Amino acid sequence: MKKKLMLAGFALALGAGYTLTAFSQVKPEILVKQRQAAMTLQGKYAGPLGGMAAGKVPYNADTVAFNASMLDALSRMPWDGFAESTKGVTVKTAALPAIWSEPAKFKEAQDNFQKAVQALVAVSRGGDEAAQKSAIGAVGKACGACHQDFREKQN
Amino acid sequence: MKKKLMLAGFALALGAGYTLTAFSQVKPEILVKQRQAAMTLQGKYAGPLGGMAAGKVPYNADTVAFNASMLDALSRMPWDGFAESTKGVTVKTAALPAIWSEPAKFKEAQDNFQKAVQALVAVSRGGDEAAQKSAIGAVGKACGACHQDFREKQN
Repeated sequence: MKKKLMLAGFALALGAGYTLTAFSQVKPEILVKQRQAAMTLQGKYAGPLGGMAAGKVPYNADTVAFNASMLDALSRMPWDGFAESTKGVTVKTAALPAIWSEPAKFKEAQDNFQKAVQALVAVSRGGDEAAQKSAIGAVGKACGACHQDFREKQN
Repeated sequence: MKKKLMLAGFALALGAGYTLTAFSQVKPEILVKQRQAAMTLQGKYAGPLGGMAAGKVPYNADTVAFNASMLDALSRMPWDGFAESTKGVTVKTAALPAIWSEPAKFKEAQDNFQKAVQALVAVSRGGDEAAQKSAIGAVGKACGACHQDFREKQN
């Protein structure tokens, strides 16, 4: 088992005092799988909140708090998976070239999403349904803004 | 967009005062995809720690703390994906029938894993490398014990 994980000093600003270390030797296909897994799970936990904000799903404060805390972690997970090494990967991905040609803009979109999630986490600890639904809307907007610029249109 | 998410009262004991709500109407294939995504990401964050504990990767306290916090969230994510509805699913899965025939034992394996992760999170806040490596070993053991009984052998 030759699993070489080189812990390079590739720190991302995470807004939480953590240093995220990238594993520059992880195969590009694995990086893609991992970042897609993070997006899949963001959908799992954001989806029901979106349903609540839209009035399609009954409001549940416990679910808002739990899902917000899961999104807090998940909002930090995909980004190191968009390594340069994954640019020409042959596995199916909806990642657009702008991710690598406009890194500052991509980083800004990540930060906006993380800030929106942090704001949701903060209000999820109180019981103000309206404030929570507004914060959920902001998270959804941040998701959409990033997808607009950096993900292939879905059909 | 007809995305019906029925928030049923299917609470899992999460050990953190949260109520996890399952979406009984989510398609089995999606549930499988989501639980596999959680396992993929557990591997992403546990792998390097295992490497450190084994002395194959340089020890890094920040990485231990960050990865432990990611595992804290991830250790809560897969289980509602093993819904009864996924038993006969046609997509590829390594889930063994024992998951549904021995639910108490499966639950115990989940709890052991979550407890091991909690213990790692606790020691990851101090700087004791030996204690952290020992806690990492316990997490790996809990992963392996569950896989032994509930996952098809990997080749």
